[in-house]
Amino acid sequence: MRVVVPFGAADPKTRLSPVLDADERREFAVAMLRDVLDALGDRDVTVLSDAPLEASVPVDVDLDVDDRPLTDAVNAVLDASDGRVAVVMADLPLATPAAVDRLFEAAGDVVVAPGLGGGTNALVVRHGAFRVDYHGASVRDHREAARAVGATPTEVDSFRLATDVDEPSDLAEVLLHAEGEAAAWLREAGAELAVREGRVGVRYRGDVF
Amino acid sequence: MRVVVPFGAADPKTRLSPVLDADERREFAVAMLRDVLDALGDRDVTVLSDAPLEASVPVDVDLDVDDRPLTDAVNAVLDASDGRVAVVMADLPLATPAAVDRLFEAAGDVVVAPGLGGGTNALVVRHGAFRVDYHGASVRDHREAARAVGATPTEVDSFRLATDVDEPSDLAEVLLHAEGEAAAWLREAGAELAVREGRVGVRYRGDVF
Repeated sequence: MRVVVPFGAADPKTRLSPVLDADERREFAVAMLRDVLDALGDRDVTVLSDAPLEASVPVDVDLDVDDRPLTDAVNAVLDASDGRVAVVMADLPLATPAAVDRLFEAAGDVVVAPGLGGGTNALVVRHGAFRVDYHGASVRDHREAARAVGATPTEVDSFRLATDVDEPSDLAEVLLHAEGEAAAWLREAGAELAVREGRVGVRYRGDVF
Repeated sequence: MRVVVPFGAADPKTRLSPVLDADERREFAVAMLRDVLDALGDRDVTVLSDAPLEASVPVDVDLDVDDRPLTDAVNAVLDASDGRVAVVMADLPLATPAAVDRLFEAAGDVVVAPGLGGGTNALVVRHGAFRVDYHGASVRDHREAARAVGATPTEVDSFRLATDVDEPSDLAEVLLHAEGEAAAWLREAGAELAVREGRVGVRYRGDVF
């Protein structure tokens, strides 16, 4: 099964702007992408980037550039497919080979890995008529879209796949649970856990997020 | 294996105060507790409450009251045990029997279910010397505490067990993914999903959280 990893290279991770400047966000986004590619192992992977990618990816990974919005670019892949495609987001640095294996081993015509706050962090599509829509509460919409075309939606219950890194507080999850390039990048940049009342935050350049 | 479910009855879910008043938080906390008890099924469960519990729990569930801080109360249970105890938090309304089964089926002397922001939402303890400390980044500390007594820590990778409901934005996860009493309580109270840029929020009494 082909695996597509959409990647926003044009202006990555804008919601991390309170913490990281544009160059830092670009570097960190590439580190997360490389962690995801690592977790995907030797699957047939294509990075689907919205702009030419200056960073290097492993030689056995294909690279397509499509500057349309995410939903359109992914649906173009589904249109051109035989109905068997996986879509795994590039901002999942907690992903491990074990979590990815559970995703691909899950039964169902459309396997959804929910993301925090209603997102869809990964999909395994085994039905020719299913199409994506990443706007809004996409995890709910994808369940409904699957049923609407007669497909059975199922879910993979994974914290590691649910934790996409979009907001400053997500950086704490990377420091707590990830062991790849993204976590190393954060540590080298000087980020560290900030224990406080409630959930743990991240301290970076004197500020706590 | 005995399962202990700590429950804060005295002043539950204070971090939800921006959304719910004290009576609402009490009702909602009990609804979440009942969802967790449902997911635990016919296991040997004791609710460990920090104050007398006015709400009803299923007749086959034991109730102990211990007004000490969480860490002390749980360690008292571990002290009195044969080294085989599970601790499952009461604010996990996304928990399902399948997620709970994965927790109990996981190998390891100390199985940890991480919570968002460094918490420890569930533990299966199979080692007599392990003790808990719920302060700070407890998931990290529990891994280290397990190793320090010669126990092997392992992890159960579950979004449903990771999602404790502490902060207003967590209510969106309940509406998106839970199907028990907590979700029903929120819906009856008038809470609904608020789709916006980024992660989905909750609209309640005209405000979006």
